[in-house]
Formats: sequence, C-alpha cells, structure tokens
Amino acid sequence: MAVAYTIGLDYGSNSVRAVLLDVRDGRQLGTSVWNYQHGQAGIILDESHPNLARQHPQDYLDGATATIHDVLKQAAKDSSFFTKQVIGIGIDTTGSTPLPINADGVALALLPEYSNNPDAMAWLWKDHTAHEEAQQLTEAAAKSRPQYLAKCGGRYSSEWFWAKILRCSRASPAVSAAAHTWVELADWVPAVLTGNTKPDAIKRGICAAGHKAFFNPGWGGYPDTEFLGALSPELARFREALPDRTYTVADAAGTLSDEWAQNLGLPAGITVAVGAFDAHLGAVGSGVTANTLVKIMGTSTCDIMISPMSQGMADVPGLCGIVPESVLPDYYGLEAGQSAVGDIFNWWSDVICPGGKDKASHTNLTQGAADLKPGESGLLGLDWHNGNRTVLVDQRLTGMMLGYTLYSTPAEVYRALLESTAFGARVILERFEEGGVPVKRVLNCGGIAARNPLVMQIYADVFNRPVAIANSLQTCAIGSAIAAAVAAGPEKGGYAKFEEAIPKIVGEPTHVFTPNAEAAAVYQQIFGLYRQLHDSFGIAGTRADLSNVMKDLMDLRDQVRSV
Amino acid sequence: MAVAYTIGLDYGSNSVRAVLLDVRDGRQLGTSVWNYQHGQAGIILDESHPNLARQHPQDYLDGATATIHDVLKQAAKDSSFFTKQVIGIGIDTTGSTPLPINADGVALALLPEYSNNPDAMAWLWKDHTAHEEAQQLTEAAAKSRPQYLAKCGGRYSSEWFWAKILRCSRASPAVSAAAHTWVELADWVPAVLTGNTKPDAIKRGICAAGHKAFFNPGWGGYPDTEFLGALSPELARFREALPDRTYTVADAAGTLSDEWAQNLGLPAGITVAVGAFDAHLGAVGSGVTANTLVKIMGTSTCDIMISPMSQGMADVPGLCGIVPESVLPDYYGLEAGQSAVGDIFNWWSDVICPGGKDKASHTNLTQGAADLKPGESGLLGLDWHNGNRTVLVDQRLTGMMLGYTLYSTPAEVYRALLESTAFGARVILERFEEGGVPVKRVLNCGGIAARNPLVMQIYADVFNRPVAIANSLQTCAIGSAIAAAVAAGPEKGGYAKFEEAIPKIVGEPTHVFTPNAEAAAVYQQIFGLYRQLHDSFGIAGTRADLSNVMKDLMDLRDQVRSV
Repeated sequence: MAVAYTIGLDYGSNSVRAVLLDVRDGRQLGTSVWNYQHGQAGIILDESHPNLARQHPQDYLDGATATIHDVLKQAAKDSSFFTKQVIGIGIDTTGSTPLPINADGVALALLPEYSNNPDAMAWLWKDHTAHEEAQQLTEAAAKSRPQYLAKCGGRYSSEWFWAKILRCSRASPAVSAAAHTWVELADWVPAVLTGNTKPDAIKRGICAAGHKAFFNPGWGGYPDTEFLGALSPELARFREALPDRTYTVADAAGTLSDEWAQNLGLPAGITVAVGAFDAHLGAVGSGVTANTLVKIMGTSTCDIMISPMSQGMADVPGLCGIVPESVLPDYYGLEAGQSAVGDIFNWWSDVICPGGKDKASHTNLTQGAADLKPGESGLLGLDWHNGNRTVLVDQRLTGMMLGYTLYSTPAEVYRALLESTAFGARVILERFEEGGVPVKRVLNCGGIAARNPLVMQIYADVFNRPVAIANSLQTCAIGSAIAAAVAAGPEKGGYAKFEEAIPKIVGEPTHVFTPNAEAAAVYQQIFGLYRQLHDSFGIAGTRADLSNVMKDLMDLRDQVRSV
Repeated sequence: MAVAYTIGLDYGSNSVRAVLLDVRDGRQLGTSVWNYQHGQAGIILDESHPNLARQHPQDYLDGATATIHDVLKQAAKDSSFFTKQVIGIGIDTTGSTPLPINADGVALALLPEYSNNPDAMAWLWKDHTAHEEAQQLTEAAAKSRPQYLAKCGGRYSSEWFWAKILRCSRASPAVSAAAHTWVELADWVPAVLTGNTKPDAIKRGICAAGHKAFFNPGWGGYPDTEFLGALSPELARFREALPDRTYTVADAAGTLSDEWAQNLGLPAGITVAVGAFDAHLGAVGSGVTANTLVKIMGTSTCDIMISPMSQGMADVPGLCGIVPESVLPDYYGLEAGQSAVGDIFNWWSDVICPGGKDKASHTNLTQGAADLKPGESGLLGLDWHNGNRTVLVDQRLTGMMLGYTLYSTPAEVYRALLESTAFGARVILERFEEGGVPVKRVLNCGGIAARNPLVMQIYADVFNRPVAIANSLQTCAIGSAIAAAVAAGPEKGGYAKFEEAIPKIVGEPTHVFTPNAEAAAVYQQIFGLYRQLHDSFGIAGTRADLSNVMKDLMDLRDQVRSV
C-alpha cells in the first residue's frame, strides 16, 4: 500500500481538534487543539436568554487553519513525511448546529452587518431557545405525519434543525429573510473547504439530515412543503431551497479549493469527505462494527449502533434516530443517548458536596465510592437530572434518589448516581436488543471511559457483560480521518470501504472491564427495582406497587453488609 | 393563694434539667442543667453493638442533687423565697428507659458487681438492641392479642419495655436472673426520692405503662402471663411481680424521704409526684388543652393530644399510643411522632453539604431556603430518613427526594427537606382528625419551634392554620413542676386540677405564625403529590399512577417562577 496521510477535523463545543494520521496503520503524526475565540469558552451567551448558545463561524475557519498548520508542522519532524502525500480531509462537528447563509453562499455572520448578531451565527446544539417550536413541530407531526416521529424516537427536539429555523423566523425575521438557506455545520465546513458554498452546490450529509431534519428516503427526502408551510411560510421557503438527496461519509464533498489549499498549506485538489456528527464518526474511530454498541461518554452520553440494511429495520420506540447510512454506507445508523451522565457527577461534586468547586472533591468521592460494595448503601436513583432522552424521550422528567438514611454519606450518594446512569444505559442496551439489534460487544469511548475505571467497572457489572475501552481520546477526529481515506478511495492511496479501513487504522481496546459475578448478581436485583421506578415515574398508566422498593433495598443492604 | 414553689426535674438523653417556679404565676426562680458523667455525652455505647445505648443510674441521682442545689441557690437570691415554701417535686424522663432492680429495690448497676455491666444499667429509649424481640412481640400479639397492638399503632417497638427485658433475658441471663423487676426511669426516680424503692411499693405511672408496656385497664392492666410466658419464662416472672394498677401525674408517688431531704436541702415530707415521659409533661408545660395538638420539635418530633374520656375513643390506626390519663386525668393521652425532623436538617447541613461540620452552613442554608418561594425548586421529598413512626409505623422506610435537576442547589434541597417534614406532620394532624379528635390549635415547642421561624412559617403554610409557639424552652421541666403542684394539692398551696394550674403557670405563646394564603395554595397542591408518594412507597397495594408527579412539580415551578 502506498504511503498516504489524511487529516481529521473534529469540531467540538469549545474547540476544534485536528489529527494527521498514516492511513496504512493509523499512526498519528500530529494532533492539535484550538480554542474558539468568541464568547465564553467559544460560546456566545445571553444573560437574559439562558437557553441561548451560539458560535461565530469565523472560529470554525480560523480553527481549521490553525490546527492544520500545527499538525503539518508536527508531521514535518518525521523525515518520511511529505505534505503532498496528504490525500484528504474529513470533518465531524457537533449537531444539530445549523447556520444561515445567503444566496451567494456566504454565512450571514461573516457579513459586516450581521457579524455581531447571535441569530445570524451558528445555533449550537445546546441552544434551547426553540423549545416551543419543537413542541409545535412534534404536535404537528403527531397529527399528520406520525412517520416522521417514528424515526426520531417520538418527539422533535428543541436542539434540532427545523425548530431552530422556525424560532429564528419568529425571533429575528430580518435574519430569516436574509437567509437563503440553512446549513448544518457538518455540511458547511466541507462546502467552504471545497469552494462549493453556493446553496445548490452544497452536498448535505445524511447524518445531520436524517437524525435532525426529518430527512428519510422513505418519504422522498426532507419533509414536504405542505407540512412545513402550515407552521410558517418561511419553513416552506427554506424547504424549497433544499436538495432531494443527501450523501454519506464515504462520499467526497468535493476537492480542496485553491484558496483553501493556500490557506492550509496543503495540495489543492485533495479529497474533502462529506461531514457527519461527532458521535457518528466517533463510533467509526472507535471501531464500530455490526452488533457493537459504541457509547461516547462525557457530560452526556451518545449511543451508536449500526445494523445491516439488508436485514431491514423496524421502528424502535424511544431511539433518537434510525437513519440509513448515517454512520456507514449500507447500514442503518441508530442513535440513542442519555441527557446527562458526567454532568450529574459534576453536579453532585461541585454544586452539592463538601469541597464545593475544589476539584479534589471528585477524587475523594470516587475513592469513597470505590470502597463501597454494590448494594451496600441502600440507595437507588433515577438519572433524569436533565430529562430522559432514551427511551422515554421526555425533557420534563427529573432526577430522584431514595434509600436515604441519616447515615447516608456523600460518597454513597455519588456511587448511587454513577450506578443510576449505568442502569439508564442498560435500559437503552436492552431497547436496542428488543428492537432486533443484538449487542454482542460494548465499546466505550470519551473522557469518562478513558479516565474513570470505577464507572467502567460499574457499567460492566450492571450490564453483566464485558465493557471495552476505545484506545484513543480522539476517536471523533480519527473517524473523520478514516472517512477522508475512504472518500479518497484506493486509487489515491485510501480505502474502498470502511470495513477495510477500520481494522487497519483503529487499534485494539486499551482495556476490557469484565463483570464481577457477585456484583452483577446484586445489580441484577437492583436493576429490577430501577425498572419499577423508571416505569412508574416515566410511563403513564404503569400503576406498579412500589411498597417493596425501599425494603428490598434495605434487605439487600443488610445482606451485603453482613457478608 | 399562699406562697408556694415546686421543682420540676426533666431527665433528657444527655443531661438533667431542674426548674424552680412560683406556683401562683409560673415565675421561674432558678433553672439548672447538669450533664451526665458516664459514657459519651452521658450515654454508654459499645462499638461492636452500634444499637446499644445505656445510662448509669448514678448519673440520675447525682444530677438531681446537683441541679436542685443549684436552683435553690439561685432562688435564695430572691429575698421572698424560703426553702420551706417548696411544696413538691415533679419528674419527667425519656422513655421507654427501663432499669433492673433487685428484691431490695436497689438498681443493679448501683451494686459493685454490676456497676460496669451495661446490661444492668438503664436501657435508654434509643437503644435498639431488641429489634428482633420487638418483632417477636409484634408477631405474637398479632396472632393472639390484636387488641394490644391496636393501642400502640400496630407494631411493638424495639425501644420499648418488654422488648428490652426479653432481650436482656437472652443476652445477659445472669443480669436477668438478678433482677426482681424492671422499672421505668420515670417511676424509679420518684421511688428513690420517696424511699419507696421496694418493688411492691413503687407506684408506676400510666404514661410509661400504657404507651410502652401494653398496659390498659381495658384488659386488666399489664399483658397476661400466658401471653408473655409463651415468649419467655422470664417475662412471665417479671409480669407476676408487677402491680395491677397504675397512677397518673396528679397522684403523689409519696413524700420526700428524710435521706433525700438531707441530700437535696429540701424539707422532708413534701410531695413527690408520679413521673411521666418528657413529651407528655412537655405538653402540659406547653399548655395542652382538648383539641390542641402539641408538637415537641427537636431531632425527632413527638405529637401529643388529649381527648376527654367521657367522649370515648376508637382506635386510630398508626398512632403510637392511645392511653387513658397518660397526659392528664380524665383524658385519653394520644401520642404520635416523626422519627426524624431536626436530624434530617442536620444530616443535610453537616454530612452532605458544603461547609461540612462548620455550623455556619446551617445559617447559610436557612438564608438560601428563606429566599425561595414555595414550589420554586420543583423538589419534593419523603421525610423517612429514620423510618416512619406515624402513621405508617415502619422503620424500614427510607428518605427520598425527587425533582432534581443539574441546577438544584443545596439550599433548595434544604428547603425541600424542611417542607417534607411539614407534609409528614400534616399527615399526622389529619390522622388525628380522621380519628375523631379535631385539631383546633397547633402549639409547637422544643428547640426548632423556638429558634427556626422559617420552619414554623412553612408548617403554618403547609397546615394552612396558625401555628403558635410555646413560650418556654423548658416546657418539660415546667410540666413536671405543674404536676408537683397538682399532686401536692390546694391544701399544701398547690392546685386541685391541671385545668386550674395550667392557665396560671403557663404563659401565652410567644408568637403565632399565620398562614400565607398564596403559599398555602401552592402547598395544597404539593401536599397532594406528597400523599401520592407517601402512599405509593408506604402502603402495600396502592398502585398509583405516578407519571404526573415530576411534571406537576415542574409545571408548578414554572408557574411560580413566572410570577
């Protein structure tokens, strides 16, 4: 195989990361992170609108330049590296993070008259200003287009494409009128790098369109104009400007333009892959295969699986999305998630517990939690502090803890919070299997997976399955670099298929946590109680008898302590 | 009315308090506290038996001497005071706190051979070593003597007389064999002061016997020998040594013996009243009348009401006790309680929250909690951190909190904990009324009532009734002094009846908290949700739909915040 390199660009919430790797074996020759310069940690906020979170598109451009310069400089230290051997760039981003562009293909916020207008910038995934609009989209679809909801778990989110566009049309009619179309960040960066920024030239990825914009080949692509027009004429206008087809990450968005080749110091004409969301390319960079559940674990968690399209796929209630080829070609991409995981641990450690903002507190709590046996505290919680994304798809659920005594300690509650997220994760795992997608391997990646062995052991014990840890903290950027290698294709030195590229580029898991039989047996009992609470508080009409819950936990506690 | 003084002795968990007052108007001429010298803060503990809590009877004697000397010294500063004008002593104690005595009437722990044996000492109310024995007593009564359980809320407690005696017979057969009988502390102190320590001479009070030892005139006094003998021959032997009748606090246990007159510096022959429990005489010292609910609020809460015996009284499920004349003659004494109140606040402040053991934390939390509106946090808890005494009578229930978000603060949770105890208190209040005992006045006393206006306002708002605060922190000792005045009788300078003494001696409430209509309306809604949780987790077979709970709280939160 010829010498060839690709670059993966990973646009996160606060920074962009680049990685440059050897496509033959995945060896990394450079890696670089650049923090966005606008707003607070890269996010434009507004004190009077706590739900608002925007980003300035200039940061995306400056970040690409800075990080690619940096990785090239690092790679140049390797005497066998030549810039002309770089064959492609792949891109992943947060999402849904749409931004408005004009008829000339210029992002509005890059025009002087809109450069300080947050509504003209990118609407970051975690912007929740559109919660009413999301509700209206959900209600309208429930009434007349239930098939739309069936593919996105039953509810349209305020984080998503159409809700944000509808919101902007109401909150900022002038910005809306100046926009010719809206583009997901994952589509916009490839468009810019290839010079294909004219609305009709942009190649939109199936990942963003399918998971966040009601796109599905089954009903002919994006939602129909009648449906959207009933909500707002602006939505109908934007719908009309959208194409009928989308692309996968195996496709090229185009080739690197002369202007950007110059900017980046790379050869013009190399492949730029179609973009996708970070979680999806993160799954690729972790080594996703059929029947592998990839969990990207951070402040929240995203779960990705793929299922061969040849086998067909029924709708699975509660999954955030079932989208053909959103992860890999020829596979359905399935997405689920937990709205808060690390955020819950941080809340307990930083907001509630002794030590306050002192970072030492996390360490102390983890140490105290590690000293406890499963079931020993008698505590059991529901991990809904930020609502429940999968399988209940309900933002208006809240966190819960029971089993408190006058002797309950901060470390006991901390461990119960860790466990509660593991129980929530098991409900998702079981839902995948109930939906006909068997889970034969669990592969965790992200910050918590890499840094918190206690949490990983708890997950292995609660699942009663081995839990493997992906071998890199840069799985998203690596996944993007893999996409670049596949989009470039074998004739340029890349690969024909992801199935060929992944085993070469992605290393073995750094560690596999195996379940402890004793712990798993205790958790099996507690998980039954978790399901009782989960269904009672989360599913209308459940009517379970809960009078056993506290006593069963206490019996278990007494048993565990007496051993 | 002639000049006359009485002394009230109040035996608490860690110290004894004496108060000397003018029976004409309740003016206090002296007050004194003496800390028990044995063990930790007066309590003998055993690391290998965490349920064990004992006291050395020598402390009770030394404490009487020390505090009475001290109040006499203080009173002597008043030139109108003469020791010979002291007409009586009344006694209240913790309970059930039984101690074993021999046939000569000597407490075993006062004999050299037993002086270091915890089993021979007083078994303090909070000793829970007898939990298995309590369970056996409950089961035996449920099978063959259901009437016994009906008068004590349906379950015999490990804190009570027979359970402890049965425990001792098994754990310490030698001590049990050396005991001729067991005496409640409330009966033992009057016996000692009057010199009537011989088993047959001891006048036992109805308060301890009725609430803790299955005594009821309805079935001829103490439980029958057959019932007790089936559990242990030792119980049968102790039953045989018990008298057939008991006395009220209006009765004299005897007169002060020469020896103790000498010890205390008081005239021999003055009246010593029959003793009772602290909560019951605390209700007297607070100014109890028919239809007044007296709440003694501290680490836990005891609720006392009285109901005229002329009206009759049905059993009320869940009340800890319904005992004729256990508070005042001619009235049923009704007891209820919450196993933890202040203890829950302390747990949050001292164990869980920032600031740790720093006392400032309580102040900060209270300030933060006071700044919140009812319903504003979206949080709702169950106050069962130490089980539920009334109305569920279930030690194996635990605390719970729901409504947590990633933004929930320590002060919000603290307020929700305060509120949860108020909701628990309202369940008790309503149970009294459901049992045919209307509550026309709520009178709170104890440390929390005196020192925490925020808690008192929350209680008034949750009850939607005025809540009056008793005008003294020494209501128990004052109640004992009142008992002494009544037991002495008018011919000695006292009173013929409690109904005459109380209005003269007990002052008006220091403050009345009146409900805020807006807050009461919000709490009315939240209380409905509390009842849903209370019944679902506390009562088998409830099977309620709980899917509304989190959402109703969030709706309420949004409403309150939008005002």
